[in-house]
Amino acid sequence: VVINPVEVVRKKRDGIALDKEEILEFIRGAVSGTIPEYQVSAWLMATYFQGMALDETQALTEAMIASGRRVTFTDAHPKVDKHSTGGVGDKVSIILAPLVASLGVHVPMVAGRGLAHTGGTLDKLESIPGFSVSLSIEKFIEQVQTCGTAIMGQSKDFVPADKLLYALRDVTATVECVPLITASILSKKAAEGISGLVLDLKVGNGAFMKSQKDAERLARSIVAVGKGLGLKVRVLITDMNQPLGLTAGHSIEILECIEVLSGNGPSDLRDLTIELASHMLILAGKCSALSAARTMSKRALQNGTALEKFKEMCKHQGASKDPIANPECMTLSPHTATIPAPKKGHVSKINTEALGLLLAATGGGRQKVTDTIDKSVGLRLHTKIGDTVNKGDPLMTVYYNPEKLTTSGIDLTDFSIQLAQCYSITASRVSSPKLIKKVIES
Amino acid sequence: VVINPVEVVRKKRDGIALDKEEILEFIRGAVSGTIPEYQVSAWLMATYFQGMALDETQALTEAMIASGRRVTFTDAHPKVDKHSTGGVGDKVSIILAPLVASLGVHVPMVAGRGLAHTGGTLDKLESIPGFSVSLSIEKFIEQVQTCGTAIMGQSKDFVPADKLLYALRDVTATVECVPLITASILSKKAAEGISGLVLDLKVGNGAFMKSQKDAERLARSIVAVGKGLGLKVRVLITDMNQPLGLTAGHSIEILECIEVLSGNGPSDLRDLTIELASHMLILAGKCSALSAARTMSKRALQNGTALEKFKEMCKHQGASKDPIANPECMTLSPHTATIPAPKKGHVSKINTEALGLLLAATGGGRQKVTDTIDKSVGLRLHTKIGDTVNKGDPLMTVYYNPEKLTTSGIDLTDFSIQLAQCYSITASRVSSPKLIKKVIES
Repeated sequence: VVINPVEVVRKKRDGIALDKEEILEFIRGAVSGTIPEYQVSAWLMATYFQGMALDETQALTEAMIASGRRVTFTDAHPKVDKHSTGGVGDKVSIILAPLVASLGVHVPMVAGRGLAHTGGTLDKLESIPGFSVSLSIEKFIEQVQTCGTAIMGQSKDFVPADKLLYALRDVTATVECVPLITASILSKKAAEGISGLVLDLKVGNGAFMKSQKDAERLARSIVAVGKGLGLKVRVLITDMNQPLGLTAGHSIEILECIEVLSGNGPSDLRDLTIELASHMLILAGKCSALSAARTMSKRALQNGTALEKFKEMCKHQGASKDPIANPECMTLSPHTATIPAPKKGHVSKINTEALGLLLAATGGGRQKVTDTIDKSVGLRLHTKIGDTVNKGDPLMTVYYNPEKLTTSGIDLTDFSIQLAQCYSITASRVSSPKLIKKVIES
Repeated sequence: VVINPVEVVRKKRDGIALDKEEILEFIRGAVSGTIPEYQVSAWLMATYFQGMALDETQALTEAMIASGRRVTFTDAHPKVDKHSTGGVGDKVSIILAPLVASLGVHVPMVAGRGLAHTGGTLDKLESIPGFSVSLSIEKFIEQVQTCGTAIMGQSKDFVPADKLLYALRDVTATVECVPLITASILSKKAAEGISGLVLDLKVGNGAFMKSQKDAERLARSIVAVGKGLGLKVRVLITDMNQPLGLTAGHSIEILECIEVLSGNGPSDLRDLTIELASHMLILAGKCSALSAARTMSKRALQNGTALEKFKEMCKHQGASKDPIANPECMTLSPHTATIPAPKKGHVSKINTEALGLLLAATGGGRQKVTDTIDKSVGLRLHTKIGDTVNKGDPLMTVYYNPEKLTTSGIDLTDFSIQLAQCYSITASRVSSPKLIKKVIES
């Protein structure tokens, strides 16, 4: 089939559905470079305005999968994965993958890096000395088969169409588009060779999606297209109006993961992890009821099975030190500042995106793709929404990099003030936001 | 002013008007290459969907003018020009420029090349041996001052932003967009240093605009933005449901131009030229009433003044032979075929776009930008809409290139049939379409 790329752009522009072959050839041409980026970006913007029917989105997802190598497993183990749309302090994958794997369900996870105000699973894992996320597809398959889980970055031959489209969307204001997000998420997940996917779709001031209505639209699109691809999908729409858990950063988040894997840790992080694990167990056919799945998951956190699997995963992926036995290898900056509450009252709101951006400004995230991250900086929250504080009570402790602040031209006092301003404190009592807002499945 | 190009695309995508500075910097960046083509094309598509307010369109036009050199004249002569949106057999500029110049109004004309089914003024002029349309801006100015008119192609430094945007629009399905068309036309015309512009906006099956409603929208946009730029604009919406005059091609159209310049030629071509000339004379302040302007224009065609000016223009632009004294230098192909009417009746419709494309297929136009044109091929119509024919009467004569037909894999018999099929012949009498449908001015 020979397509005329301008005509494909024109059809989409005019709201006419593209057929499977046209989409396949367009994506093929985009990846091979025979269709230039300026035509791809015009097509992306036309798609932003005109949307895509479900079968077009499915064809796009399939074309994207076909652009690279698809992981295939020959063993009979059920294989499920989780994907999160990202937020501040979202370290769930690092606990969840070994937890679910420890219960006999394989988790082949291709994860991402930090973006804007959010941290990335790969960056966090790399704060463990020696831990490598650059696995070949062969090594990835082998580790999943022997260890039950592996977490790796997107290698060059893994859904290259998504890499290309994502990079273009980022610079052409076409990120916020339901069919394009659907195809981006599902192409990567389906290429992992899984049969079930739990999506943690975050909504709130620390998420990329600010409105629940938009989140539900995306959830329904992902569930429907997933079904078309033969993938069982459950979407949990969860709150991201404050950091998840009590930490944000890199080394500091690994330490919090180990707390939860040891049966402790903050309740929101623990609860969400258990909930996501339970849905994964059901998709994998390990349990039929959520209550049983929850019990199974809790037990694996309490009896050390999940922690043991995490240790095994670290060893498989080259960790030179065991961060459980040697927590001091997870370096935290010695420069700390405690941010006091400016007045008495109740924490009613946390500007989570601003908090994430402030963390990035002291080296704890990327401001541009080429930035290197300082794994030792981070935040430890002492209060969250609903908590009562007196004037002067510590809101949070920041582990900062003084040199980075200097080169960024930020004064520590100003920085502390800006961190404090992320908190809203009101006179009236506020309740803690509900963590899981909705579950959507086909 | 430093702009973030993604934010400019996002603003336009979200329907927020861009300010003058943003538009200026975006166009500057696009031309200098600091803003990559994929962002420009995403912006073009967003503009296609969201449109532009009149002041944005004006700012875009001004930014495009600022991208290159603007022609400036120091003499006191009024300067006006005409632009046509193009059609089949539209050779008006070649008659009009010398006609108006012969009446003391200077016409500095930057013209274009053939596109799709239409021919271009520059290509037609180049069929005169030695005639050059590649003038420097200095030579262009000098010729306008001494001869009263010059017709040249768009040199590299003449509105480079339009070249870039037009090339991108062509391959990203963003041609049909009123503010972008407005800015494209007006930037080139305003950069000619004129004070008045008459626009021949063609509508019909041989034009780029098929509906009168769309044409009127474009006309109002051009009149309003022209006013903002200090340019007096009149738009004539004219019929393009059949070729203008009786010829289409290159050499053959020059010969028809000479007929009209000699006071003869087909009435539709003569009438439209006189009408456009009359509006130009009024914009230039030469006449206050159209009737007086018409009389003046007709006289210049009849008494040889316009023809003399055409001869002078040819000499200035390097013609090695005078096509008036030596019409045989305008070579026509010796291979001709006459297309007979397949039945008795009245010519009710001519598929003008198809006719133009068939002409291009035998070398009389470009199928891609790099094609060279065979100036000796062409069409001579013997009948037009409203004419009565008997079966076997000649509808038209085609001057064709047998080699070109062979390399294109076209059989002469098939070709003749396809040409005949461009004509619709009905039993009931049909009237000739009204040539000038509407005049729009500010």
